[in-house]
Amino acid sequence: MYNFEYQNPVKIIFGKGTIPKVGSEIPANTKVLLIYGGGSIKRTGVYDKVKDALKNVDLLEFGGIEPNPHYETCMKAVELIKKEDVNFLLSVGGGSVLDATKFIAAAALYKGDDPWDFLSHRFEIEVEEALPLGDVLTLPATGSEMNGNAVITRESTQEKLSFGSPKVMPQFSILDPECIFTLPDKQVANGIVDAFMHVLEQYLTFAVNSPIQDRFAEGILTTLVEEGPKVLANRNDYDAAANFMWSATMALNGLIGSGVPQDWATHMIGHELTAFHGIDHARTLAIVMPGIMNIKRENKKEKLLQFGERIWGITEGTYNERIDKAIAKTVEFFESLGVPCKLPDYDVPAETIEKIKERFKQRGSKLGEKADIDYNEVEAILQDRL
Amino acid sequence: MYNFEYQNPVKIIFGKGTIPKVGSEIPANTKVLLIYGGGSIKRTGVYDKVKDALKNVDLLEFGGIEPNPHYETCMKAVELIKKEDVNFLLSVGGGSVLDATKFIAAAALYKGDDPWDFLSHRFEIEVEEALPLGDVLTLPATGSEMNGNAVITRESTQEKLSFGSPKVMPQFSILDPECIFTLPDKQVANGIVDAFMHVLEQYLTFAVNSPIQDRFAEGILTTLVEEGPKVLANRNDYDAAANFMWSATMALNGLIGSGVPQDWATHMIGHELTAFHGIDHARTLAIVMPGIMNIKRENKKEKLLQFGERIWGITEGTYNERIDKAIAKTVEFFESLGVPCKLPDYDVPAETIEKIKERFKQRGSKLGEKADIDYNEVEAILQDRL
Repeated sequence: MYNFEYQNPVKIIFGKGTIPKVGSEIPANTKVLLIYGGGSIKRTGVYDKVKDALKNVDLLEFGGIEPNPHYETCMKAVELIKKEDVNFLLSVGGGSVLDATKFIAAAALYKGDDPWDFLSHRFEIEVEEALPLGDVLTLPATGSEMNGNAVITRESTQEKLSFGSPKVMPQFSILDPECIFTLPDKQVANGIVDAFMHVLEQYLTFAVNSPIQDRFAEGILTTLVEEGPKVLANRNDYDAAANFMWSATMALNGLIGSGVPQDWATHMIGHELTAFHGIDHARTLAIVMPGIMNIKRENKKEKLLQFGERIWGITEGTYNERIDKAIAKTVEFFESLGVPCKLPDYDVPAETIEKIKERFKQRGSKLGEKADIDYNEVEAILQDRL
Repeated sequence: MYNFEYQNPVKIIFGKGTIPKVGSEIPANTKVLLIYGGGSIKRTGVYDKVKDALKNVDLLEFGGIEPNPHYETCMKAVELIKKEDVNFLLSVGGGSVLDATKFIAAAALYKGDDPWDFLSHRFEIEVEEALPLGDVLTLPATGSEMNGNAVITRESTQEKLSFGSPKVMPQFSILDPECIFTLPDKQVANGIVDAFMHVLEQYLTFAVNSPIQDRFAEGILTTLVEEGPKVLANRNDYDAAANFMWSATMALNGLIGSGVPQDWATHMIGHELTAFHGIDHARTLAIVMPGIMNIKRENKKEKLLQFGERIWGITEGTYNERIDKAIAKTVEFFESLGVPCKLPDYDVPAETIEKIKERFKQRGSKLGEKADIDYNEVEAILQDRL
């Protein structure tokens, strides 16, 4: 195990009927901006429950945050915050709304010229202060509810980048699994894949003797494999919904990634597919990961075999055969959820591979837990997915 | 899964060579009381490392905290704190020193007459404020480094009671697995059993459909079964030490107990064995738990079978046979660590059972996750251990 530091002060309020608790979590004497997305919270009744709980709070609203939230939209919220002296942000929605809220929280207090700096110069410019924020989560997927990370897209340049800071961790996150009851199949499937991938990025690396982290990761993966299809089959299965929701949170709250190597190449390459073609985030991961498993099988050999055995029960064959089977079972699982895993399934032309290769060539940085994936290997990974 | 709230802001600093980091974790302009036990930290060099890191800190010392820390000793520290205007406490030692430090932190700012109230009236009197504290942990066992709980013994009345409050959670905990290299066998064995039991108290209950919590619990148990003996066999196996240490922390930081029933009857009964006979805490748990498993097998049936299968590979036999085997395998594991599991092994006379029964009769409260263990059943559980 590597040395590590871990601290996660987010207060989780989990369970059915918990949304009204938002009323007692907002600090006194604050002016709150309620941030939301395309309005599904109004159809599902979540909006009304939140408004009802905040009857006595000084409240403004900002709707219209997109999936893959746009920098440009966030900056409009920042303008409103400055004009109205807002001092607490409440995200009501899924991971995109929450990621936007985190960026807005940091951007509102940034002293530099352009808060895009947090993403374009992630490792040079730190968030020094941010507005406090909390959230009511309506869609389990990104794990954003228990970490300080966010991914933002800049429309004008087709860039999708991330930043992270403890300063933008939510003060509280309210997780009511009943929110899942009204989600369409596609969002449930995407959420399952997204959480599964978050685990793989922290688990499917070279091995460093970390049985607690491994078993927690495997526990989340197995739970997603078992409970995910139950949620898809019966949207009103509360237990399955609750187990899925808690899996997604545990997948990316820093715990299983503490003291171990992390990969994230799948996310980095996947973000480009979203930037160029607008493919749902989770689906880009389902496309890229099998390619990473295949092309990086030497780096990940020990963990790929462990993954095959402990998640899919694969114990026979040469190591290459076992790895092939593990990749096939993973793809089969995603496809069973209605998530195809090849580039042509999404009408991505071969030229996009060239464009993405070029982008990584320009950036010059290498990907993966060993930082050994250069732009040529990015190309090989994407060719594997044709 | 039950509804739950979870928040754990303790900062964990984990790994070899991390003790000097204590210097940057103590807040500026504080007067610190370094609290420790019988002086083993001086033999092992931990004391020197801490002192060296705190060269520029205004520092007082208070040694002599006992295993099963005494209220009477803690109150002497409180006196010193008040006299010297100490405003930060640093625990350097194992769980006993840290538990004492938590009690001292709350007692120092208590406005009532006697801080024993926190324990004797646990559910009526809350800790409203406490001095901030941090710790350097030298012995993995109690999990105290990542929670707000403490157990204190009042010598004058032979009472051993617990209290808990988020106010006494450490600001930081420094966990250097190399501290394990110098521990005697007995303390390692006790630590393994203690951590194992913390998991069982939160896992071996009736079932509520909580696969994440179950698998995390099972991951900790399996890791203790695999890594514990390695630590005992080779005290310089860093990986085994690190995995053991992280297991003990994860066993009692609130995570695996969130959203599920909890038992704690083993601890409640075990405390009485320590109070009457001074038996090491962990050993009292090893005595009592097999009795609980046996006598409460109907309550815990489903989880006992799951425990037998997933931890010990028991899949054959009637359900009673499988539960008997699971109990036998658990006892065998403890005995392999040098921890006997019967009352006569510790020269506890049958009369003690009468005294303990009487104590629970007087208290009137019932134990266990269903609150259905009365004093007669306490007697039956202890009779099972003769």
